[in-house]
Amino acid sequence: MTNNKTSVTYDAQDLWQKDRNHFIHPFTDFSLFHEKGCDLITNSEGIYVEDVRGNRFIDGIAGLWCVNVGHGRAEIGQAMADQATRMAYFSTFNNLSNAPATELAAKLAELAPSHLNHVFYSCGGSTANDATIRLVHYYFNRLGKPTKKHILSRNNAYHGTTYMAASLTGIASNNWEFDTLDHLVTHLSEANCYRRPEAMTEAEYCDHLVDELESAIERIGSDNIAAFIAEPIMGAGGVLMAPQGYHARMQAVCRANHILYIADEVVTGFGRLGHFFASEAVFDTQPDIINVAKGLSSGYAPLGATLISDELYAVLSTPQGLGGVLSTGFTYSGHPVSCAAALKNIEIIEREGICENVRDVGPYLERKLKTLAVHETVGDIRGSHFMMAIENVADKTTKELLPVEARVGDRVAAEAQKRGLIIRPVGHLSIISPPLIWSRQVVDEVVAILDEAFAATTLSLKADGYL
Amino acid sequence: MTNNKTSVTYDAQDLWQKDRNHFIHPFTDFSLFHEKGCDLITNSEGIYVEDVRGNRFIDGIAGLWCVNVGHGRAEIGQAMADQATRMAYFSTFNNLSNAPATELAAKLAELAPSHLNHVFYSCGGSTANDATIRLVHYYFNRLGKPTKKHILSRNNAYHGTTYMAASLTGIASNNWEFDTLDHLVTHLSEANCYRRPEAMTEAEYCDHLVDELESAIERIGSDNIAAFIAEPIMGAGGVLMAPQGYHARMQAVCRANHILYIADEVVTGFGRLGHFFASEAVFDTQPDIINVAKGLSSGYAPLGATLISDELYAVLSTPQGLGGVLSTGFTYSGHPVSCAAALKNIEIIEREGICENVRDVGPYLERKLKTLAVHETVGDIRGSHFMMAIENVADKTTKELLPVEARVGDRVAAEAQKRGLIIRPVGHLSIISPPLIWSRQVVDEVVAILDEAFAATTLSLKADGYL
Repeated sequence: MTNNKTSVTYDAQDLWQKDRNHFIHPFTDFSLFHEKGCDLITNSEGIYVEDVRGNRFIDGIAGLWCVNVGHGRAEIGQAMADQATRMAYFSTFNNLSNAPATELAAKLAELAPSHLNHVFYSCGGSTANDATIRLVHYYFNRLGKPTKKHILSRNNAYHGTTYMAASLTGIASNNWEFDTLDHLVTHLSEANCYRRPEAMTEAEYCDHLVDELESAIERIGSDNIAAFIAEPIMGAGGVLMAPQGYHARMQAVCRANHILYIADEVVTGFGRLGHFFASEAVFDTQPDIINVAKGLSSGYAPLGATLISDELYAVLSTPQGLGGVLSTGFTYSGHPVSCAAALKNIEIIEREGICENVRDVGPYLERKLKTLAVHETVGDIRGSHFMMAIENVADKTTKELLPVEARVGDRVAAEAQKRGLIIRPVGHLSIISPPLIWSRQVVDEVVAILDEAFAATTLSLKADGYL
Repeated sequence: MTNNKTSVTYDAQDLWQKDRNHFIHPFTDFSLFHEKGCDLITNSEGIYVEDVRGNRFIDGIAGLWCVNVGHGRAEIGQAMADQATRMAYFSTFNNLSNAPATELAAKLAELAPSHLNHVFYSCGGSTANDATIRLVHYYFNRLGKPTKKHILSRNNAYHGTTYMAASLTGIASNNWEFDTLDHLVTHLSEANCYRRPEAMTEAEYCDHLVDELESAIERIGSDNIAAFIAEPIMGAGGVLMAPQGYHARMQAVCRANHILYIADEVVTGFGRLGHFFASEAVFDTQPDIINVAKGLSSGYAPLGATLISDELYAVLSTPQGLGGVLSTGFTYSGHPVSCAAALKNIEIIEREGICENVRDVGPYLERKLKTLAVHETVGDIRGSHFMMAIENVADKTTKELLPVEARVGDRVAAEAQKRGLIIRPVGHLSIISPPLIWSRQVVDEVVAILDEAFAATTLSLKADGYL
């Protein structure tokens, strides 16, 4: 990889062994891990990452939906080093603050929909969502409505993995052998146009989902419900697309029932759909709370933020009794170095017109990916702009899935990786969520690789008797 | 502040206003915040921090129990910049890894007690504790013991503020108007030698606390209890010191009842008591799980880690069914830049003999602080090495506290700050938890300031009629 970085030589075998002996990875299939261990990603530049053996790949997943400005940005590293050396850390509790956290809060208020002007920091998406539920419960306690505590989420939602965030998450396989807080959360149906009931038009499907929300409110009682939380496009649950108008209608029902609307923009925020925030610009909603992480710092440093409306802040900031404090937040809430990384990241997004690039190249990516529909397993190609997924099926008409043991997602990912492209397999899905700096030329290269990868996958599935 | 850092000029008034308008601080007393806003800490070097107006202070709280190697370490900043530029972020999920996270996992296994060889990463102390409870519940589910779920914690424990971590936390005022998961957690008495029942010797007090644990187990049933979690010395709860032998005896009872023992070493780890880990070296316990954060990266980057025993790992890493994964962990688990900061931090601790400094200067700090007992409000001076607190009282014999509205902790802190020293007021306590690089000379300077601060506080309390 040609770049001007400090060169480091790694002992690949030694690292592989240490990893296997000591590192417990998130979301690990231990039968594979014990057999193969890990691939080490050790270098990166722009749209590329490189493994410890020197193999270079186009990064089709932006690290994990997050490296929005691309890899190897020395100016972000420099901003972090400068801040770490100047003032790496001091408490932000109570009456103490620091310059980057303050500047970033002001900048977020400027970028966000106009009624969201107050920022509560956390360390990533999970803690942003977890802290939000804490704050929402506090809000209703302070309003004297202590019964308003239940949270409405959705099947196949992904909101993270703290104990509370995992309880909000609605992906069934995610909670295998894990416990959740079922007394506090009810999951409605996901909004999934591809797998909607066959007889329904998209408009009827939307009515159906809104009806379901209304029924749930009637059943549980609006006096017992605090909030509804939703990703504008479901991410890890499968890049599921809601029917036209869904979010605005869901919000209207929430508002009519005094239920707060929380938008989890951890994936959709910071340019992935062509705007800093998708809620208002793309989906015409005005959430009471928007949570962001990932693209906020482009993954260069752990950081999450909860953007809170003026109306909520007025209650949250009501002076407490003597000696009382708003007893929540983290040591690293508003970490100066993470906030410095985010400020530089936002500067780059603005300076280089990265949202504009997504609005330009995104529709092109969508169009080009749709040419892959010719492949036998490709049942659906969906998503928006730089947030795309391909759903593999056994039968395009019935939409029947291949058996789990066919590992179709893994096959496609492996075939792509052989050809120099990393995409993310999630069950029978192939997820593409690249850095936001892909050009049309890169899209052409990527789609050519995917074309070969799906062709090879079809052949291998046939050879193994799955097709 | 004389150092070779990139110079930045801040507009103090502009920052103050932005902070007030947009930054929701953790643990905020909003009556004070609305009145005064925040002090901005913008510069730092070694044992000093500086506010936006150029006032310099000795940092007596290490940021928030965390800047163990001191401020302004350019080599940590450089290590972060190098890693951020080389490979800032890639997923560590499933079969992917990176070099700094792997090296750090191996290093932690080397430093930790010999049976703790497996590392699960998080973003700080709250998420380390939260993830631990998730993993412990998963562990018992996989063992086929799904009723073992209850967690024993202690009053005045501080384990963070995710929904679950806040539920483990046992500081009553911390959960004012916040909800907790009371069905999953029982709080035993704190171990607090200063305020133990008057008639008891320390040894009898220890028996009493162990008896209480045994009674709780009998009442709840060991088949229903997953784990006991404890800080070796309670931190935010007041630097509370347990009686001699307490931890080892509590662990023995847990072990006899197949209850996991979780040590929360977020504050005590990485040198604060003179060792990388205090559990075994200081308290003669062999926890099943040790959680660390703060000193792990000296606060230069958000990072937490859960160290897990070989025995637990054998269960956690048992291959799942087809397509199953260990569905927990964060985008930023094993963040390359945070792990690079931690590796450099550990290198500095070892190279400069920082644990040795704590073992040398710590007892000196304890001795010198004890000279403050001459002051009228100083009821107790306690702690160990670089983790100290002074408890202010109205009456040394009865240990009666001053009324909350006297704000004695705030008074002492303000008087110290006037004289160039930041300490942390927590209710009626004055907490001193400095960077681990204080010399005897600094201790002398600090104790001289505190001597004046306590004298001035006594005068002001008298002037206001509280004494």
